[in-house]
Amino acid sequence: MSELDDLLTITWGRAAEGSAPTEAEAALGAGWAVGPAVNGGAVMAVAAAALGETFAGAGHPDLLTWSAFFLSPTAPGPVRLQVEALRSGRTVSTGQVLVLQDDAGGLRERARITATLADLAAMVEPAHRAPAAPPMPPPDACVPARRDGSPLAAASTILDRLDVRVDPATAGFAAGRPTGRGELRAWLRLADGHEPDVAVLPLAVDCLMPVAFDLGVPGWAPTFELTGQVLGRPAPGWLQVRLHADTVAGGVYVEDADVWDSTGRLVARSRQLAGIRVPEGGLPPVAG
Amino acid sequence: MSELDDLLTITWGRAAEGSAPTEAEAALGAGWAVGPAVNGGAVMAVAAAALGETFAGAGHPDLLTWSAFFLSPTAPGPVRLQVEALRSGRTVSTGQVLVLQDDAGGLRERARITATLADLAAMVEPAHRAPAAPPMPPPDACVPARRDGSPLAAASTILDRLDVRVDPATAGFAAGRPTGRGELRAWLRLADGHEPDVAVLPLAVDCLMPVAFDLGVPGWAPTFELTGQVLGRPAPGWLQVRLHADTVAGGVYVEDADVWDSTGRLVARSRQLAGIRVPEGGLPPVAG
Repeated sequence: MSELDDLLTITWGRAAEGSAPTEAEAALGAGWAVGPAVNGGAVMAVAAAALGETFAGAGHPDLLTWSAFFLSPTAPGPVRLQVEALRSGRTVSTGQVLVLQDDAGGLRERARITATLADLAAMVEPAHRAPAAPPMPPPDACVPARRDGSPLAAASTILDRLDVRVDPATAGFAAGRPTGRGELRAWLRLADGHEPDVAVLPLAVDCLMPVAFDLGVPGWAPTFELTGQVLGRPAPGWLQVRLHADTVAGGVYVEDADVWDSTGRLVARSRQLAGIRVPEGGLPPVAG
Repeated sequence: MSELDDLLTITWGRAAEGSAPTEAEAALGAGWAVGPAVNGGAVMAVAAAALGETFAGAGHPDLLTWSAFFLSPTAPGPVRLQVEALRSGRTVSTGQVLVLQDDAGGLRERARITATLADLAAMVEPAHRAPAAPPMPPPDACVPARRDGSPLAAASTILDRLDVRVDPATAGFAAGRPTGRGELRAWLRLADGHEPDVAVLPLAVDCLMPVAFDLGVPGWAPTFELTGQVLGRPAPGWLQVRLHADTVAGGVYVEDADVWDSTGRLVARSRQLAGIRVPEGGLPPVAG
């Protein structure tokens, strides 16, 4: 069993008489942490897995689009999931998952994920148009994201689960030389060899460093909301991820992620709104 | 009272003992229809208004980011709103609205909107970077969207509430000459002179014709999910809206909307995943 399979193991509670079970538990272990909290991508992946199991019987096991609101940081440890099936139609099903944790004696909501699922194998129409994967040096010519790279990286156990190779053209942030363009490009795969599938995609869009680092704004960027779209089942091999932020205003910024598979097909997109503290004097100039 | 004020009038039910009221009603009248259904932008605007009233006391009256899942078409007429306050913090509050309608004797969910609200007046940081408004001829040199333009337009009463002027460079779809680029640009204001405010923005991102029209794919595009971000309070005057679709694959497409105010400031963005039926033979070629 891969580390991702382990993360996505859902333990369902007993169903009420005559209905499907709607309470479940999962273990968001310390191995998926970024600093003191669990990575939001891992939280979303667990919620998506619970919905995938909920709607498998309806023929809709695959995430098609989802939205996650992050209400409080998820601590490493067990989480309770409250799963609500909203609608099952012919082509899609929609449901919602509340991710809850015991906190100071009470049950507190960490994240609320709503999603529409489908059968991606039945969505056979080809990719008519999509942004092309950016040209990048091969993974071996890129910069591995290492846990000894920074204090934040040292506290990010998730880096042990991932194999991340950052395009040298966008890796300057780690040496105090952000490009200022607000762009990060990286190859991504799971460290234990689990090949990419739809279940990996919520993680893939949200497991890299915040693109604010390349804007010259270090420090953590709390996400208010993240929405993702799945455009296809990824082929085996490396994923290619591009993060981009073209909007920074009023103390928030918009981060887009695009994910391509090893055949060059765009398989997922996401957009998130996150907080940012731009230093006095504004953003640093764009390099070059 | 403007037509938008009328649309956004929320009638709250009686509160349970010691708590805020969470049940409300609104009238999504026949004046906001696109064909047989109410425009999704109007549905989102009503839900946002209910949340704005819910969190005004917490100092967070303004929509900051929202997500809407569309579960069944909203018919013109009264809707019931179930409003849930999820979290109120120092800078933001988050809540959820279920939009319900009586349908064949039962109460049926039309849309589920989750949103984070804030005080945009307190978000004083400037716009550090944002996509610039596209150059467009002035409104009087653009093409008004008229109800006699097509059968769909004839059935779209919402066009009586709006003043839409389509950039001639992207208006060819109406004459059977889409550009194939998947782009629509238009000036937008409310027909009765209501100046743009934050409450207009959920409507602004979703009240124009689907950008699929410019891909040469007519017919309605059902939205699965739409997420929006608010980047600032709009100034009085015309709004400028750009719709763009760069991803069409597997029977779905991604439509992005960007909205600028009359000062050229980007005030809102949205991204939605919608269904699309591309004709045999694929998308038509890009013109020019």
